[in-house]
Amino acid sequence: MTPSQRQTLKLRRVAIDTYRENVAYLHRGCSVYRSEGFQALSKVEISSGESGGRKVLAVLNVVDDESITGIDELGLSEQAFAQLGVAQGRSVRVAHAEPPPSLDAVHRKIAGERLAAEDFMAIARDIGAKRYSKMEIAAFLVSSAQAGLERDEVLHFTRAMVECGERLDWGEPLVADKHCIGGIPGNRTSMLVVPIVAAHGMLIPKTSSRATTSPAGTADTMELLARVELSPRRLREIVRHQRGCLSWGGTAQLAPVDDLLIAVERPLSLDSPGQLVASILAKKLAAGSTHLLIDIPVGPTAKVRNMREALRLRKLFEFVGDRLGLQLEVVISNGRQPVGRGIGPVLELRDVMKVLENDPEGPADLRQKALWLAGRILEFDPDVRGGQGYAIARDILDSGRALDKMLAIAGAQGRNPDKPKPGRLRFMVKAPGGGVVTAIDNLQMARIARLAGAPIAKGAGVDLFKKLGDPVETGEPLYRIHADFSADFRFAKELAGKDIGFYIGDKLPLQPVDSEV
Amino acid sequence: MTPSQRQTLKLRRVAIDTYRENVAYLHRGCSVYRSEGFQALSKVEISSGESGGRKVLAVLNVVDDESITGIDELGLSEQAFAQLGVAQGRSVRVAHAEPPPSLDAVHRKIAGERLAAEDFMAIARDIGAKRYSKMEIAAFLVSSAQAGLERDEVLHFTRAMVECGERLDWGEPLVADKHCIGGIPGNRTSMLVVPIVAAHGMLIPKTSSRATTSPAGTADTMELLARVELSPRRLREIVRHQRGCLSWGGTAQLAPVDDLLIAVERPLSLDSPGQLVASILAKKLAAGSTHLLIDIPVGPTAKVRNMREALRLRKLFEFVGDRLGLQLEVVISNGRQPVGRGIGPVLELRDVMKVLENDPEGPADLRQKALWLAGRILEFDPDVRGGQGYAIARDILDSGRALDKMLAIAGAQGRNPDKPKPGRLRFMVKAPGGGVVTAIDNLQMARIARLAGAPIAKGAGVDLFKKLGDPVETGEPLYRIHADFSADFRFAKELAGKDIGFYIGDKLPLQPVDSEV
Repeated sequence: MTPSQRQTLKLRRVAIDTYRENVAYLHRGCSVYRSEGFQALSKVEISSGESGGRKVLAVLNVVDDESITGIDELGLSEQAFAQLGVAQGRSVRVAHAEPPPSLDAVHRKIAGERLAAEDFMAIARDIGAKRYSKMEIAAFLVSSAQAGLERDEVLHFTRAMVECGERLDWGEPLVADKHCIGGIPGNRTSMLVVPIVAAHGMLIPKTSSRATTSPAGTADTMELLARVELSPRRLREIVRHQRGCLSWGGTAQLAPVDDLLIAVERPLSLDSPGQLVASILAKKLAAGSTHLLIDIPVGPTAKVRNMREALRLRKLFEFVGDRLGLQLEVVISNGRQPVGRGIGPVLELRDVMKVLENDPEGPADLRQKALWLAGRILEFDPDVRGGQGYAIARDILDSGRALDKMLAIAGAQGRNPDKPKPGRLRFMVKAPGGGVVTAIDNLQMARIARLAGAPIAKGAGVDLFKKLGDPVETGEPLYRIHADFSADFRFAKELAGKDIGFYIGDKLPLQPVDSEV
Repeated sequence: MTPSQRQTLKLRRVAIDTYRENVAYLHRGCSVYRSEGFQALSKVEISSGESGGRKVLAVLNVVDDESITGIDELGLSEQAFAQLGVAQGRSVRVAHAEPPPSLDAVHRKIAGERLAAEDFMAIARDIGAKRYSKMEIAAFLVSSAQAGLERDEVLHFTRAMVECGERLDWGEPLVADKHCIGGIPGNRTSMLVVPIVAAHGMLIPKTSSRATTSPAGTADTMELLARVELSPRRLREIVRHQRGCLSWGGTAQLAPVDDLLIAVERPLSLDSPGQLVASILAKKLAAGSTHLLIDIPVGPTAKVRNMREALRLRKLFEFVGDRLGLQLEVVISNGRQPVGRGIGPVLELRDVMKVLENDPEGPADLRQKALWLAGRILEFDPDVRGGQGYAIARDILDSGRALDKMLAIAGAQGRNPDKPKPGRLRFMVKAPGGGVVTAIDNLQMARIARLAGAPIAKGAGVDLFKKLGDPVETGEPLYRIHADFSADFRFAKELAGKDIGFYIGDKLPLQPVDSEV
């Protein structure tokens, strides 16, 4: 600390949105900048100087234009300005920021140590208070991905993330939820499971994400039917009346630490089992879930590649879930191909509605999987006899009660008057040879659908005509690409031209029995 | 990619200096921003759209103020604007950036793999081209710190860093240099070694850093005597005439990848042996050194804590240095206490000048250590018989030729007319009890000197009156704190009040013979 630290600057709001990273702007000619020996990108602490006043940490950018930040001003980006809660023009002080105290634990993790509950609590608290830079979050994530987290550590970290955020209380002893590990295109079972389970009377307040790397998320698809961005109050009211909802999870402040971690994990493509389990369970606990079904699809192009990996993940979910008071079931499903026919929001909604409407053209695999998952959740109900869940779910679906419930939920959330159609540009991909479909590459199908414009172009995607084991003749249609814009269309066709994502052989190879569905 | 990617925006230079991170600014109302589904902090690629035109990667910030970036504009921070090399107002395109291809190797490192020479080359090239975000650099550094780099990997990475930058050529077969691992306050041996070695006629173009976490660097101290920021041309001329220099290393573009790594290592306080060795050797090779002396001080409060660690580091230096054609010697020195008396730029310069002037009050330990190191370097000269270096160095120093050389170098670099004095605020720290000084805490002495204002306040610091093994009586002066500003002064006194950093006992404990000096 040097004396200039006691100098003050006038606060200014700089209308730049730096998302989850606070940025402070100092003019190059500013005396504080010069005397403090600050360096651009170093971390600074800004305070109002009043005792008990708030402090914010920010990364420093140096400004050469007084119209952005003047010589006697300190600029703050929008989020940082809001966090400090001090009016424009008021005096603020700036100083070198001390590194967050819990970084010491991160260093011990880098050195290969096993961390204690207090360490994870301190790390979660510092991350939640935005005391970590993106680099520091990356250091924590990489160190725990590389050395791996022991299952005790995953437990501690999950608990710490839950405690560093709000936690919903639905005031009921059984709050059901489901989560799929992901990676399987077309896998829109939540939109069937929620109406079935809610129609049974069980509470299932489902929040979902939008797609970030896949061609559609449940929120992207549901949005075609109804509003998904709902205030917490509105959500609570809908759930009370309907026993279920299908909303976007982004508005609530549940497990905010997890959101900050994901903002670094995604661009780095980090996904370690420990962080995955902690992330999912922290979100579900914060959302007030008491009973949770986890679906782990396994297949050569799924996120989880083999049975051994899936079992290890299941044990970890069970270990942590049990100790945090969650009633948790893990099912391992067949992840060798997309579920249903459509890939992309509009095409997936079509599949879901056909199943709900008991349309004989509805995809049987999507129906089967949804009934199976819904049945498992229904068996959380103490009054449902073990093994009866599937039959109850089927009865609810076949009787039209699931469709009614879906329409009621959509009505309560606010029906979307638009009826978007599948993309008008269409291209049929045909079988280059005859035989049997022996494999479908989930990753390639997802890539083609994304290049075609999904999920931003709602009607874009891929519509499958053949599935694993289907016989095909040379030239017979395998799938159709839909797009709304000609450039997207061209890119998707080009990609499919390089690799159609379908493998055709003499007969379907015998698969090891490695999944329940 | 979606069609809007083909839309263009007008380039605008935004006068914000974001240091080593490129930032692009898009207005929230901009159609490209809306249609692309960009998210703030995501990485984008900006191109002029002309074939063969340059591309830059940048992190996206979203602007709500048209005076910073308009609706049809794309703003670039200063460095990014300079890198793109396109005039303001010209059309540019923006697209989602692909992750750098070498990130795949980083993921393999995270998974515990050993990387090959090509991997390190690809990583260094991508980092050098600024294709890595700070998070991605952190991921690379943490993964190689945690799993550790095999010595072959350190070799590959050192070579890759050297190849991704300019390399000086002094046109002589023997270009000497020295480097100290650091962590010992007052250790200003370079300012004695350079004039001694240059006076002998050996080429020693020494560049040094400024202090970042210590109370003084060689550049901070030399700056009191002469200019240290010199153009490459000027530097070359001085070295040709004087055979040596003492300049700041920040202006040259030597091993730029190393600078980008350090910008992440420092705030994260990462220092793994592999990165340390690669960083030092890459810089020295890029600076054209052919003969290098490395000093590793060892002590309980030094950077290297014990002999085993020091030996491991020495082997690693030797392994890599030998394979890259460096003539490299490693010496292990006593790092149990500060070297000399003064800590802080003015006080350290005083010590150096006293030794050069053969003043009997000059600190004997600084003189001894400098002679010993200079002697080892002189023995790189094929004409100097093994074991004779020390005597030659002493002769050069005692005869006044080292002082003359120092004054000649300072004159050539440009004498500083100011004569700054030790800080006028002074406080004497006295022995709380009698006995013998049994330990001095390097870290605590450095912290006190930094709080007192060093290195920014040049006269601030600590002046030691007692060293290890000295007898002291209760109330006898141990050291004096110097400061220039009353707040700094108060902070430093407070810190010394909590822990004086000196340990006084019955007698100096026997130390294992673990160092040469």
